[in-house]
Amino acid sequence: MSDAAPPPPSGPLAGVRVLELGHFIAAPFCTRLLADLGAEVIKIEPPGGDPVRQWGRQVEGAGAPWWSMHGRNKRSMVMNLKHPRAVEIVLGLARGCDALVENYRPGQLARMGLTREKLEAARPGLIVAHISGYGQDGLYRDRAAFGVIGEAIGGLRYLTNHPPSVSDLPPVRVGVSIGDSIAGLYAAFGVAAALWARDRGGGDGRGRTLDVALTESVLSMMEGMLPEYGVFGSVRHPTGARIATAAPSSAYPTADGAWILIGGNSDPIFERLTRLMGRPDLAEDPRFRGNALRVRNVEELDRLIGAWTAGYAARDLDRMLAVADVPATIAYTAAEIAADPQFRGRGMVREVEDPAFGAVLHAGIVPHLPDDPGAIRWPGPRAGAHTDEILGGELGLSAEEIAALRAEGVVA
Amino acid sequence: MSDAAPPPPSGPLAGVRVLELGHFIAAPFCTRLLADLGAEVIKIEPPGGDPVRQWGRQVEGAGAPWWSMHGRNKRSMVMNLKHPRAVEIVLGLARGCDALVENYRPGQLARMGLTREKLEAARPGLIVAHISGYGQDGLYRDRAAFGVIGEAIGGLRYLTNHPPSVSDLPPVRVGVSIGDSIAGLYAAFGVAAALWARDRGGGDGRGRTLDVALTESVLSMMEGMLPEYGVFGSVRHPTGARIATAAPSSAYPTADGAWILIGGNSDPIFERLTRLMGRPDLAEDPRFRGNALRVRNVEELDRLIGAWTAGYAARDLDRMLAVADVPATIAYTAAEIAADPQFRGRGMVREVEDPAFGAVLHAGIVPHLPDDPGAIRWPGPRAGAHTDEILGGELGLSAEEIAALRAEGVVA
Repeated sequence: MSDAAPPPPSGPLAGVRVLELGHFIAAPFCTRLLADLGAEVIKIEPPGGDPVRQWGRQVEGAGAPWWSMHGRNKRSMVMNLKHPRAVEIVLGLARGCDALVENYRPGQLARMGLTREKLEAARPGLIVAHISGYGQDGLYRDRAAFGVIGEAIGGLRYLTNHPPSVSDLPPVRVGVSIGDSIAGLYAAFGVAAALWARDRGGGDGRGRTLDVALTESVLSMMEGMLPEYGVFGSVRHPTGARIATAAPSSAYPTADGAWILIGGNSDPIFERLTRLMGRPDLAEDPRFRGNALRVRNVEELDRLIGAWTAGYAARDLDRMLAVADVPATIAYTAAEIAADPQFRGRGMVREVEDPAFGAVLHAGIVPHLPDDPGAIRWPGPRAGAHTDEILGGELGLSAEEIAALRAEGVVA
Repeated sequence: MSDAAPPPPSGPLAGVRVLELGHFIAAPFCTRLLADLGAEVIKIEPPGGDPVRQWGRQVEGAGAPWWSMHGRNKRSMVMNLKHPRAVEIVLGLARGCDALVENYRPGQLARMGLTREKLEAARPGLIVAHISGYGQDGLYRDRAAFGVIGEAIGGLRYLTNHPPSVSDLPPVRVGVSIGDSIAGLYAAFGVAAALWARDRGGGDGRGRTLDVALTESVLSMMEGMLPEYGVFGSVRHPTGARIATAAPSSAYPTADGAWILIGGNSDPIFERLTRLMGRPDLAEDPRFRGNALRVRNVEELDRLIGAWTAGYAARDLDRMLAVADVPATIAYTAAEIAADPQFRGRGMVREVEDPAFGAVLHAGIVPHLPDDPGAIRWPGPRAGAHTDEILGGELGLSAEEIAALRAEGVVA
């Protein structure tokens, strides 16, 4: 049972009802985005809860603070999907929903008895979003969906590296499971588009199936990589901290061990940078006149800039470069993000009161709709916090029936 | 004038009409996604065209092949937005549209005379999506929106690095302008959600404003980074090619200079990997028993695995690891992507006939809707290819009126 009556949903998706059969990142991220904009989400978790509740640093007995954000605005119901009675309960819940979002292995839902036909019979017009590593069909559909492997197949990982002339270290991970989150965001876009097609005036009332693959979501972001290969046969290679076609634009060391990004590749900005460095001669230097020559001589140019930045603390550089009107920033860590006045001012870093953790910092709601902004109605609930409320409210079961289901091990 | 009657739009957003006042990546990527799902997009470009047409490697006289994909399914009209007569033409086009997507500097549209009020008067219920570096208000709103700087403020760039114990090289760029594309995807999601809120049965008929910032779109992807900092005061640091909590999971060198990703962190997979390496003893080694110990001794473990992978060509490793059922992949370049049977089989790598370039490889349509898949109706058109068609069709201008506008330098 939840602790208090929740505030009513707000935002453009208020009125949408979503059933999540998800775990880990992609499907729960999709439903977080839908819920941020007002959708009501019922998340079905296995006994013990979604394993993601334990991902990252934990508070004894409460799990990982990430969950406070990842699970926000959702209601949680714990159910053993392997129990024979689970299928009828899922179908009963689907009856009252607009969309179902899931990221089990392809085919697993159908093997549980939750085929497209049964779902459609329960709720004509249900939108079903499947998220997987490689898609719901084809040669690779049964491969295990490891995010880092999917990102490498999508073409991202080859590029997050220094050129071989600079380093023989392996290409780095992006630092978060970016492919999962991008796939979740694509699924949220698809659900909203399918809702419009179904429900608009003159809409067709039809449900639609979405088949979102992590690999394909990543590939979709790779800009001209594929067209260039097709036309020229040329493979895009990693460029490390730099941009292949603009200089100077890189990350430079600071006296206190941080990194400062400087984008100084237009002529007027480059001039301002050289004056700030006390080296106005560089703007006239034949090696560095115009972007094309700066790109050609970028090694030497970056060496000079790096030698200068290494003499100052990151905060001092950040201030000096801002005053000189040179686009630049410290590479923000969580500490700079939490303190940033722009993020704070726009509600993109907020304190959310969480009974499990106290005040927790959450990222805000994207996209921001100033006149209809959605809300963080509550933080991620404990597993099963709403089992009784959902069985009683959505399915109309009596306290005795719920107790029987619990005793049978169907729900918890 | 376009060369042939275009095929009718298909996909869940067929019937949506979008006006793009965009350039570079974020707004045009947003409208590409909308158009992929069926929206009709009119792109207004300055004389000379969107500068992105020249980004990346070019074909003499035709520009960059990226445009074939970035501009696909859109109609292009060239107009000088600084001309006093431009405003009325934009408002005339907005009258027939559902949404406007733009990524000029915050406030610039209003300074041109295209205020929210005028747009709303022209088309009550118009959805307006603004995409910018830092948002439409606040301290940073007027800062230049450099993608690499926005990504660093969003927290991504600090993490795309090796730990200081491994390397003193700067953190790498992701290799594409990922922050711009993520912001464009968020905007597409927001447009679809706002369309549903406006147009559904019982919808409110209201237009909505979307204010999508690159920095915030990136921050939204940073998982538990912010909640963990809030609760523990702990800053997430880069982990290079590895994952902090799972081992082995990294990129390893191959005999032919490529990288192979291996995700071998569960006990059964690790056992299979050690057998394949001819080192079954490692699975019993007290240093490597269970994930926690493998994480603690990851340096030594990765050294052993890397020494083994370095003895084989990437393709051989890929095959051996697949047979042994160990999740793994070569870090795909454009070449592997273009040849991949799963991408080809699912239409995620397709050849598109382009009058400017011949056959061009495009990434497919994400999200994939098997029963209502959208279409690549035509490749990115030349700048102004549809100016006459739009002025004549949408605005009902005569050939003489169009000729006069052209002579005045309003359109081209």
